[in-house]
Amino acid sequence: MLLAEVIGTVVASRKEEELEGLRFLVLQPVNKDIKASSKGVVVAVDAVGAGVGEVVLFASGSAARQTSLTKNRPVDAVVMAIVDQVETGGNVHYNK
Amino acid sequence: MLLAEVIGTVVASRKEEELEGLRFLVLQPVNKDIKASSKGVVVAVDAVGAGVGEVVLFASGSAARQTSLTKNRPVDAVVMAIVDQVETGGNVHYNK
Amino acid sequence: MLLAEVIGTVVASRKEEELEGLRFLVLQPVNKDIKASSKGVVVAVDAVGAGVGEVVLFASGSAARQTSLTKNRPVDAVVMAIVDQVETGGNVHYNK
Amino acid sequence: MLLAEVIGTVVASRKEEELEGLRFLVLQPVNKDIKASSKGVVVAVDAVGAGVGEVVLFASGSAARQTSLTKNRPVDAVVMAIVDQVETGGNVHYNK
Amino acid sequence: MLLAEVIGTVVASRKEEELEGLRFLVLQPVNKDIKASSKGVVVAVDAVGAGVGEVVLFASGSAARQTSLTKNRPVDAVVMAIVDQVETGGNVHYNK
Repeated sequence: MLLAEVIGTVVASRKEEELEGLRFLVLQPVNKDIKASSKGVVVAVDAVGAGVGEVVLFASGSAARQTSLTKNRPVDAVVMAIVDQVETGGNVHYNK
Repeated sequence: MLLAEVIGTVVASRKEEELEGLRFLVLQPVNKDIKASSKGVVVAVDAVGAGVGEVVLFASGSAARQTSLTKNRPVDAVVMAIVDQVETGGNVHYNK
Repeated sequence: MLLAEVIGTVVASRKEEELEGLRFLVLQPVNKDIKASSKGVVVAVDAVGAGVGEVVLFASGSAARQTSLTKNRPVDAVVMAIVDQVETGGNVHYNK
Repeated sequence: MLLAEVIGTVVASRKEEELEGLRFLVLQPVNKDIKASSKGVVVAVDAVGAGVGEVVLFASGSAARQTSLTKNRPVDAVVMAIVDQVETGGNVHYNK
Repeated sequence: MLLAEVIGTVVASRKEEELEGLRFLVLQPVNKDIKASSKGVVVAVDAVGAGVGEVVLFASGSAARQTSLTKNRPVDAVVMAIVDQVETGGNVHYNK
């Protein structure tokens, strides 16, 4: 999984029917200091009710279809947890 | 998923028979400002009737075979939504 | 999928028995202008009879096992189409 | 698999219910000299009781769901071994 | 698949039980000239009896579980062939 900040949303009315009802979030992957990493933005399905500004964990690949919401749907990234705290090197770098 | 602009098409008459009837689009991945990102072009199957110039979402990996059109076919990328709007940081960066 | 030029072959006599009879091609991924991209070479199984110098499409990951030739075999890339034409921005960048 | 050093932990109370009880580790991928590589941090599920400071192997993608702990869960990275020794070029670069 | 040189081994006594008996090799991916590429080292399971110094092909992702040795095990990379010869541009770049 990667750490990311939710920075926005995508609206798409014309899409595969299996995608009806899913919410698409724009994610900026972050490094351990919760600063934007060099990776570009990713769009993921929201499975946990995450909001803009929150730090989340997202899973990519076939893992993204292992939630009840996304099963058998053509999606390759899902937000599956909202992060409360990140601790590295004995320091808390993020505390919600 | 990644955001991308449809910039062209690929014609391939000699191919795996499972690929008959599929339309191949050339995609340029874009960043949150809908400008070309540093990622190179990708070729994806069109599952939604997207046209050149449109901004789309595409899914990679096994997700690309989760549409009725692509099931069990040897493809690793599919355009599964045409984007209407991208909003980040309170700003609308794209409005179809 | 990615566009690539077939630039060579790999011979490997000692291998997993599931790989007997497969032909391995060395591919140089190319960008939309059919020039070598910054991605390094990839070795893919040939499912369409592609020859050195031809421009092809190859699929990666589990998609590579969706052809009759590669089913259940330990391969992660397959050439599944020989490209006739690539058109982007209204220009034909490749015409076989 | 990639070599990595465990550098921290992530706490996430609001998450997909399939994730209950899993421990999330922050990993810094390392190169053959066990120095941080240029790859950014990854968050992986701990399947072997790894602690901060230990060098581990982690698997990504669908492989991450092949342990009894992670089966059918929406995770894409798992720590599946704690490294005792890395030897390259006739030199032992790491010895626990 | 990618071309790589076997440069070492990893010993890990504490691991997922599904991993018992597997041999872990440290691989340095190489380019078409069989020189180290810019990709960092990868650790793969040995399915063909490869030794340090040999040039091999390895497969990543779910393909890594398509050998009798690795089936259903949490591994994401496998050495599935030992390379005898690589020929590109009419030149033999490697001959075992």
